[in-house]
Amino acid sequence: MKIITISREFGSGGRELGKRMADILGYDYYDREIITAIAGARGLDEKYVEKTIDSRIWQSIPLTYRRSFSGGPIPQASQTSLLLEQKRVIENIARAGKDCVIVGRNADVLLAEENPFHIFVHADKEAKIRRCMERAGDSENLSPKDIEQNIRRIDKNRAKTRELIGGSKWGDYTAYHLTVNTSGWNLKDLAPAVAHFAKCWFDKHDTPD
Amino acid sequence: MKIITISREFGSGGRELGKRMADILGYDYYDREIITAIAGARGLDEKYVEKTIDSRIWQSIPLTYRRSFSGGPIPQASQTSLLLEQKRVIENIARAGKDCVIVGRNADVLLAEENPFHIFVHADKEAKIRRCMERAGDSENLSPKDIEQNIRRIDKNRAKTRELIGGSKWGDYTAYHLTVNTSGWNLKDLAPAVAHFAKCWFDKHDTPD
Repeated sequence: MKIITISREFGSGGRELGKRMADILGYDYYDREIITAIAGARGLDEKYVEKTIDSRIWQSIPLTYRRSFSGGPIPQASQTSLLLEQKRVIENIARAGKDCVIVGRNADVLLAEENPFHIFVHADKEAKIRRCMERAGDSENLSPKDIEQNIRRIDKNRAKTRELIGGSKWGDYTAYHLTVNTSGWNLKDLAPAVAHFAKCWFDKHDTPD
Repeated sequence: MKIITISREFGSGGRELGKRMADILGYDYYDREIITAIAGARGLDEKYVEKTIDSRIWQSIPLTYRRSFSGGPIPQASQTSLLLEQKRVIENIARAGKDCVIVGRNADVLLAEENPFHIFVHADKEAKIRRCMERAGDSENLSPKDIEQNIRRIDKNRAKTRELIGGSKWGDYTAYHLTVNTSGWNLKDLAPAVAHFAKCWFDKHDTPD
């Protein structure tokens, strides 16, 4: 079984890169699916799960948080319990034994024993802001400065969650097999190059079935 | 003209990786040749040049430094003047217009305008110590602890020289297109994978002739 994990700076294109690599290699792909699985396992709303799990550590979630169009209070869960559920979901993905690409969620730390190929994806600040603006389209009226603040806030939260579960320091290149700068690349061209690199790694390393 | 620059942690195998990549791609290769050229241009002993240029910044070189088997004092030069000569040598390499791999010497900073493909090479501490011990053979009686201290000292000097010439912080992954961990790789297998990656980059980016 071959697992590729992708950690990435917000706006660097790591998610699209992972999706494209999975398509090229014929691997399963996990990203948003993990949130869906956690929500399903706990009978929670997906948006609630995402908000809780990705919020600043120890930041209290308002007790009055409610599902739209629903009268009563929705089931709630602590960030810690959701992070534990996330751990189970990701371990189950590995247990299924199929080659896959997992984006985010510190899967590299959680699945360290499975010897995944770890990739860290980053980009120049300008490239990340540009990508976020394109993604948001005209619907969201965010200035480059707003976006820059968003990027910083989201990456800071990711760093804290990583610290909590005992992973390496956020952005510490020594924890990865390959650290890729997407600036100046069209992801369509970059994906086969990174996929080829990962393939070379797996060709030379025995992986358990 | 395609230029690949390789910065590397001491003991990570970056030099061998660069040499192998140059062989695979049919590029010229520069590493030690740069020291030879500086020594030639200034009429200095190669060992003296190497020692002076790579020593701790502002650390005074003993005035009594002498060439073996030579009676009189040898010509001397300051670290700053040798760093300037190094700049000229590296700019001349670029001016020659031939595809090449340049290992070390902050060539990525000095040749930024030529748009080289920048690679940073690192490895786990244990892998670096092992590589250094193999390289030293039985002739040098160094303990793993001695070697670890050497690695730290040499990388610290490299960091200071980099700072002096205005480059990015040592080991800051954001300054590179690709950051490669050589741990767990046989360099014979890694070199074609990195060479392929660099080729993909050049295929998609116009480079001046």
